[in-house]
Amino acid sequence: MLISDQIIGEFIQTRQTTEEICAPLTQEDYVIQLRNYMSPPKWHLGHTSWFFEDYILKKLDENYQEFNPEFKHIFNSAYQHIEDRYLRSSRGNLSRPSVEEVYEYRDHITNYLAEFLDDHPDQEISFLLTLGIQHEKQHQELLFNDIKYLLGSNPLRPRYSETYEENIIEKQKSKWIKVKEGLYEIGHATTDFCFDNELGKHKVYLNNCKISNKLITNGEYLEFILDGGYENDHLWHAEGWQWLKRNQIKSPMYWHFVDGQWQQYTLKGIRVLDLEAPVTHVSYYEAFAYANWRELRLPTEFEWEVAQDYFDWGKRWEWTESAYQPYPKFKKRTEFIWEYNQNFMVNKKVLRGGSVVTSKNHTRYTYRNFYHPSLRWQFSGIRLAKG
Amino acid sequence: MLISDQIIGEFIQTRQTTEEICAPLTQEDYVIQLRNYMSPPKWHLGHTSWFFEDYILKKLDENYQEFNPEFKHIFNSAYQHIEDRYLRSSRGNLSRPSVEEVYEYRDHITNYLAEFLDDHPDQEISFLLTLGIQHEKQHQELLFNDIKYLLGSNPLRPRYSETYEENIIEKQKSKWIKVKEGLYEIGHATTDFCFDNELGKHKVYLNNCKISNKLITNGEYLEFILDGGYENDHLWHAEGWQWLKRNQIKSPMYWHFVDGQWQQYTLKGIRVLDLEAPVTHVSYYEAFAYANWRELRLPTEFEWEVAQDYFDWGKRWEWTESAYQPYPKFKKRTEFIWEYNQNFMVNKKVLRGGSVVTSKNHTRYTYRNFYHPSLRWQFSGIRLAKG
Amino acid sequence: MLISDQIIGEFIQTRQTTEEICAPLTQEDYVIQLRNYMSPPKWHLGHTSWFFEDYILKKLDENYQEFNPEFKHIFNSAYQHIEDRYLRSSRGNLSRPSVEEVYEYRDHITNYLAEFLDDHPDQEISFLLTLGIQHEKQHQELLFNDIKYLLGSNPLRPRYSETYEENIIEKQKSKWIKVKEGLYEIGHATTDFCFDNELGKHKVYLNNCKISNKLITNGEYLEFILDGGYENDHLWHAEGWQWLKRNQIKSPMYWHFVDGQWQQYTLKGIRVLDLEAPVTHVSYYEAFAYANWRELRLPTEFEWEVAQDYFDWGKRWEWTESAYQPYPKFKKRTEFIWEYNQNFMVNKKVLRGGSVVTSKNHTRYTYRNFYHPSLRWQFSGIRLAKG
Amino acid sequence: MLISDQIIGEFIQTRQTTEEICAPLTQEDYVIQLRNYMSPPKWHLGHTSWFFEDYILKKLDENYQEFNPEFKHIFNSAYQHIEDRYLRSSRGNLSRPSVEEVYEYRDHITNYLAEFLDDHPDQEISFLLTLGIQHEKQHQELLFNDIKYLLGSNPLRPRYSETYEENIIEKQKSKWIKVKEGLYEIGHATTDFCFDNELGKHKVYLNNCKISNKLITNGEYLEFILDGGYENDHLWHAEGWQWLKRNQIKSPMYWHFVDGQWQQYTLKGIRVLDLEAPVTHVSYYEAFAYANWRELRLPTEFEWEVAQDYFDWGKRWEWTESAYQPYPKFKKRTEFIWEYNQNFMVNKKVLRGGSVVTSKNHTRYTYRNFYHPSLRWQFSGIRLAKG
Repeated sequence: MLISDQIIGEFIQTRQTTEEICAPLTQEDYVIQLRNYMSPPKWHLGHTSWFFEDYILKKLDENYQEFNPEFKHIFNSAYQHIEDRYLRSSRGNLSRPSVEEVYEYRDHITNYLAEFLDDHPDQEISFLLTLGIQHEKQHQELLFNDIKYLLGSNPLRPRYSETYEENIIEKQKSKWIKVKEGLYEIGHATTDFCFDNELGKHKVYLNNCKISNKLITNGEYLEFILDGGYENDHLWHAEGWQWLKRNQIKSPMYWHFVDGQWQQYTLKGIRVLDLEAPVTHVSYYEAFAYANWRELRLPTEFEWEVAQDYFDWGKRWEWTESAYQPYPKFKKRTEFIWEYNQNFMVNKKVLRGGSVVTSKNHTRYTYRNFYHPSLRWQFSGIRLAKG
Repeated sequence: MLISDQIIGEFIQTRQTTEEICAPLTQEDYVIQLRNYMSPPKWHLGHTSWFFEDYILKKLDENYQEFNPEFKHIFNSAYQHIEDRYLRSSRGNLSRPSVEEVYEYRDHITNYLAEFLDDHPDQEISFLLTLGIQHEKQHQELLFNDIKYLLGSNPLRPRYSETYEENIIEKQKSKWIKVKEGLYEIGHATTDFCFDNELGKHKVYLNNCKISNKLITNGEYLEFILDGGYENDHLWHAEGWQWLKRNQIKSPMYWHFVDGQWQQYTLKGIRVLDLEAPVTHVSYYEAFAYANWRELRLPTEFEWEVAQDYFDWGKRWEWTESAYQPYPKFKKRTEFIWEYNQNFMVNKKVLRGGSVVTSKNHTRYTYRNFYHPSLRWQFSGIRLAKG
Repeated sequence: MLISDQIIGEFIQTRQTTEEICAPLTQEDYVIQLRNYMSPPKWHLGHTSWFFEDYILKKLDENYQEFNPEFKHIFNSAYQHIEDRYLRSSRGNLSRPSVEEVYEYRDHITNYLAEFLDDHPDQEISFLLTLGIQHEKQHQELLFNDIKYLLGSNPLRPRYSETYEENIIEKQKSKWIKVKEGLYEIGHATTDFCFDNELGKHKVYLNNCKISNKLITNGEYLEFILDGGYENDHLWHAEGWQWLKRNQIKSPMYWHFVDGQWQQYTLKGIRVLDLEAPVTHVSYYEAFAYANWRELRLPTEFEWEVAQDYFDWGKRWEWTESAYQPYPKFKKRTEFIWEYNQNFMVNKKVLRGGSVVTSKNHTRYTYRNFYHPSLRWQFSGIRLAKG
Repeated sequence: MLISDQIIGEFIQTRQTTEEICAPLTQEDYVIQLRNYMSPPKWHLGHTSWFFEDYILKKLDENYQEFNPEFKHIFNSAYQHIEDRYLRSSRGNLSRPSVEEVYEYRDHITNYLAEFLDDHPDQEISFLLTLGIQHEKQHQELLFNDIKYLLGSNPLRPRYSETYEENIIEKQKSKWIKVKEGLYEIGHATTDFCFDNELGKHKVYLNNCKISNKLITNGEYLEFILDGGYENDHLWHAEGWQWLKRNQIKSPMYWHFVDGQWQQYTLKGIRVLDLEAPVTHVSYYEAFAYANWRELRLPTEFEWEVAQDYFDWGKRWEWTESAYQPYPKFKKRTEFIWEYNQNFMVNKKVLRGGSVVTSKNHTRYTYRNFYHPSLRWQFSGIRLAKG
């Protein structure tokens, strides 16, 4: 299979988009890691470059010389390292290599690979290239999550952008979409790219159920707060209640009650909470407790996949009730993509859809995002089901 | 519905069995809590009594006076208490009430309730009584887990019993049981007692698969160790690998390598590891890594339930690949039994079967046991599947 | 030097006193360890016996057979053990050996040694015997501290004794005792027994100062609380403020504000706070902050030693401003008594005097007690100085 | 008292020196905080400016407008803040204000104050100005400590400077300086500037002792390592041994054993360990254990002060045996300088002398530096005493 011009174009475009996402950052912003689950923007820039270097350039080009031999230790994401200085939790400790060097590294990789592809159009690396592009798109979204978190945690509350609108209001009238009991096919079936966790198209039996065509709004969620939702342990998982107590959680992330008014930090800075906008930055624990309070429930990922044609989605990741587990025909694949395989398939919940910061041409209705139930720095919201 | 003599007999028998389980203990053993997930034997004795007092006696008998008003704080298992002195993790801090007082409390409850039932055979409390009995049977198993742990952790390695044989060797020849793809009904369907998490009989579609008719033995598991299973991070969940590293796990619980020989602490004391006996006291992480090493997998709880008629089970809880989640028609029920409902349905894995220390007439093929993937002080083993 | 009948008598009396202190305990009380700095009563009983076994019997009697070879691991206090099961923090994990066995061990040691001394009156072991006796007296005091803590933390608040009066009110009129500037001799100088940290009589130059002849009372301390002493960070060491915040300290240990009234847990159970009694169970941080609030200070241990002839002491350990450091001529001695030597001489503060639970013939005016500034489960109080 | 041109010159020079120390840094270096006891370089720059703004400009100039009202929260060092976002441990979370803004802030303060002083030569602010200058000099040294730590922890091991030589070899022959027993005067006595902890000239009685005229070298310290010094718990304080075990300490900070060779990270980058150079970056625990191994001891701060005229010092802070405590006549002073007063006088050890990175005209023979016994990121060394 020849490398198409289109995919080369997409490669270059993706590399550029990553840099555009970082454009509003100051040099100091690139260094910050506030939580173990975050990475500094600089690390994302380096890691996505290392991915192309390590999995394509070093494998296909015998003349290729590493840009810097130390970088593979710094920008590798493998979790097994034991040396303190390379630990995931230590990514925010690295002032060097500098932002400038990392951009040089990026440029080097982008140019070298683009040129290499031009010279070797017969290389059978479509898949690897696509994987690298999709991998970088995942990190584009993580960049948004991490940047919002690091700016939103700063006491000066700096804005990311004057114009980036993250709150997309759903105008449609609320209604329940019926899913009829029966057998349905789940999973990715076309020849288009997908991650390995979506593969293994298989049958699933669903019972009658109904799914809302709208996401829960800030206003609806506020009622839960005002009704004492965060003080009533019966609504929560035992584990969620511990999480809430230990972290003194009293509202979604980025909500601030200031001078008698609920405000929300957004990519455009601090604003009055928009009651019409979908609630976001909630953990699975909160989504579950909210559904419980409404005497409803979250949909499973299968119900969601079956019903998704009948509602709009893609502006907000949606927590599902489903644990992240392998599909029946899941195959552990070659080593280099094991990041998406079963090594993460425990104690995570599946999110479906996509969010306002998800890259173009990245998500799809079979896409399975997954996070620990406590995480909420991603743009995550709530859609209810019943039956 | 009248209270049958049979159920009254079972009540009295159950109360007695609990005390027989504790008979080999010294008075000091009753006080010990080594881990947050354990409770001191004394607490189990009090808690199972409080259950009958609080849910039956106080509700049905208007003349009933609490044995000791303070006990409801001490022996309640609700997780929401915030005062330090009643915390779950503080159960091992309580030298008072004494063992003797707790036995007096038990006798009081047993006798009072037995008499009350004799006098009120028309009371509609069959369900509550059965629930109390089954609840106490659950604690009988926990007592075994906790007692083994507290004795097995003592440097003197005292035995629990001269005769209690926990290792039941499976003699049958190993073979694969086929499950044919299709729709199956899952869940409890009779009128017999079951816990709420088993209810909601529902259809599940299974793919072709095969399940082993035998559990993995100590000898088979030892090969995994000798092949470096505990040093190869590729076999493990990322989370399992962290658990292993943090806790320096190198073998199943209770295995000791002494003077060039593998030994195992059992209820009969320290013995040479029996290679023919089923491996036990492994975490889900270990079960998964072992299956991975064999290039096989664990069964789902549905595959297990469908195939269980074709193999022996009940001597060893079996980890499944399934996350503990509500069945489609799961209903959150009245408050007092919420311990078994959805408040625990996150970040747990389902175990099926039963173990050598599970009480008689307690488990069944629809029974869903559940633990955090890291726990292994229960008698948990490994059955493999493929396809 | 011959072993005198008097010292043999004191040995037997001391062994007996230890057991009398434990007499009010239930069997379950013997097992409890609530904090790392505590030990279970059972451990004190065993450890003081092991001391005589290891340092006298095993060294002097070639026929001596250890009572139980495992006990030396369990009852040794050396801190360097790395095995989990013998760690200091794990002493509360040991239900075995039983209380009964430990008492058998005690009896065995007491009788064997008493007999041995009768048979070998010429043995030059006066010093070792005295050391063992004084060591056991130290543990008698620790037993009181630990027992009060374990009973006082129990939600049932059981009393230790009907009659043991720990609050000794000072009736004398308050006045300042003047210490004139000049050279003074500090340290133990007679041939009587003392611990090695008191040795090295040496000159110290003191400035003019004044020391109060009375300890601070509960009533005086309460004024500090009511004046917001626990909310004013300027009064506290930075480290003390962190301690206070982290542990939510708002009053001395054992004080409880119940139904609008200050109560105090004592060895006689819960009582209304006696405003006339000396305040006790305060940390050095609290003692310092209180002195600061009064615009006064704590005395140094040297000022205390020089002035002590002019005030009553011995009913309450008194925090001094002095860090616990070696005296100028301090000599590290033979291994077996290194518990009292320099290995603890960092980050501790000296307390002088003695307390209501200090054993008879144990303390003296040169005695240097020492604890980490945060500890307050001992009977510790406040005497002020100025100048 | 008029403000002299000399002090204005020193003010401007000091401000400039701080910036010169930071000149080799990349913009990213300014943001990093690796330990709670460190601060990011950016914070030092802002904090020293805030000091002049808050204690001089705001107090003396009624027209003065804060450069940025938010900065007083960010650059204040007071420890009592409870909001997470201003915590000491969160200083490394702040990408904003930017390095550029902080330099603008600095320039603003420097220029405004310089101009103000020109216009108001009659202001009685000599003391405050001097204090601010000395305060900034302290931070200059901290900057060196923090910069070395952040660069030395980076896997790329970048050098700070090509020329900055931190290892000053002592050429003199080793000998013991005798201090004769008797009364000595300790403390600051001239009218020159000093910190409040040096005040209160007072008499101290010293015994005969001897102090080495040389610091311990890397070579001498290496013998301690090779003799198993880090494995012999008898040499260590109990607390030091715990510290060593918990942190897996096996050598001084910045020592690396690579390819069979001891190397040392210095401000000039990685170099072969110079056996002749004084050992540095040791904790008090290590200094004490080393002295113990030599059967010698550390000097007290008084012995050091008395003997200091007879040896060279100032290239390496020297741990003393003395706890950091108030001098007899210590007076708690006005609020704004309480950073140097008694709020830190617990659980710290005194270091005397000065180091190669101490600012000019900053230290003196009465200067009392102090750190927790575990800290070693400062340039700290060992001088022995005996007798």
